[in-house]
Amino acid sequence: MKTLIVVSHPDISNSQTQQFLKKGSELTDAIWHHVEGLKSIEVDLERKLLESADRVIFQFPLYWYAAPAGFKKWLDTVMSRNFVYGDGQFHLEGKELGIVVTTGLPAKDFKIGGIEDITLDDVLAPYRAFARRSHMKVLPYLLVDQYWYKTENQQMQLLMDYQRYLSQDYPDSLNNRQAWFEKRLKSFVDNLPEDSQTSGKLILDTYQQQIENLDQLNDTLKMIKEGEDDSLE
Amino acid sequence: MKTLIVVSHPDISNSQTQQFLKKGSELTDAIWHHVEGLKSIEVDLERKLLESADRVIFQFPLYWYAAPAGFKKWLDTVMSRNFVYGDGQFHLEGKELGIVVTTGLPAKDFKIGGIEDITLDDVLAPYRAFARRSHMKVLPYLLVDQYWYKTENQQMQLLMDYQRYLSQDYPDSLNNRQAWFEKRLKSFVDNLPEDSQTSGKLILDTYQQQIENLDQLNDTLKMIKEGEDDSLE
Repeated sequence: MKTLIVVSHPDISNSQTQQFLKKGSELTDAIWHHVEGLKSIEVDLERKLLESADRVIFQFPLYWYAAPAGFKKWLDTVMSRNFVYGDGQFHLEGKELGIVVTTGLPAKDFKIGGIEDITLDDVLAPYRAFARRSHMKVLPYLLVDQYWYKTENQQMQLLMDYQRYLSQDYPDSLNNRQAWFEKRLKSFVDNLPEDSQTSGKLILDTYQQQIENLDQLNDTLKMIKEGEDDSLE
Repeated sequence: MKTLIVVSHPDISNSQTQQFLKKGSELTDAIWHHVEGLKSIEVDLERKLLESADRVIFQFPLYWYAAPAGFKKWLDTVMSRNFVYGDGQFHLEGKELGIVVTTGLPAKDFKIGGIEDITLDDVLAPYRAFARRSHMKVLPYLLVDQYWYKTENQQMQLLMDYQRYLSQDYPDSLNNRQAWFEKRLKSFVDNLPEDSQTSGKLILDTYQQQIENLDQLNDTLKMIKEGEDDSLE
């Protein structure tokens, strides 16, 4: 899967959050594309980048309930009506659109009646409308709130969540998570030094065995549920 | 009432809609402030302009379900957290915030299940959230859809609606409409040439007499309703 991260931040080198996410993206094949860093917005180049991606991520901090001006400039410049939906042509059709939004306030403030008195779903509705108009598939947004307050464990969790957001198949089901993790574990074991290969493969075997056990349990559960359904008839 | 119109359009001289609205604004005392026309955004000057206004209008065409990039740049630059709500200081507190939004698509397309599959209230929610955060009073937005399809009569109606939006007291009640119209009629009659003054004053007298008649009818209606309330007890 090819993922393009369209990142917007007017002062990205001083953003701890964005620098951390950038390192996370480098552990995947995703392309990090910082729009304020472009000398000029070359429409044709940007569109080729978009067209070559299977998943497009809009990534930005919230400034007054929307992406920064630099992102809007990129969107207004690259997305003409004709490119997005004109003449029955949908150049972004079928691609996935994800949003990684970072906030200085905690998630709990984005509630009706809360400090911000608006939900993040409502804040992001205009981007969802764009996705629908361009026939893209919307992924649930990934929120990174108050990065600088996170413990080291929470940061590691975020690093995994972010990598999965960039490269895992959606929906975010147990099966898709397992497949994603197994693939990464395999590649990790393959790259171990020779003297660690044996124990690495043991871990991988154990993991794969556990997935099989889980699958069997799921099958059993399914049979039980089907039996219950029958008894209701 | 002092009204500041913060207008955003990247190519305003070629926008028939904005040029028409500009002429409308010149019939009022409102200040027309085109953000893309500024050489640079001088934060202190912009804030003084805002602070001197009783009503602030954000006016823009919808580009991908939001104001153009130029507006966002102005907003991101002028509105710091400290200016808007920091340290318990609300520099825009109590001012009215209106939104004049122009669209190329007709109003009926902005419905759940419609072509745009989102309502204009949802599109404009981020600006409303800004108003709440800054303790401003939100006015209902004024939509100008498909200006170029409007008949001459519809354009004249729009011209009146726009002028009222800039200078009439809110809520948009019959009393506030009458007061607004009476004030304008007076000033119109005062500026008539001498030989038209007599007929001008006659029109004004008739209008004022009609308002009085209407007030009396309302009083009667009120008494009748109160009587009905009593009879329910």
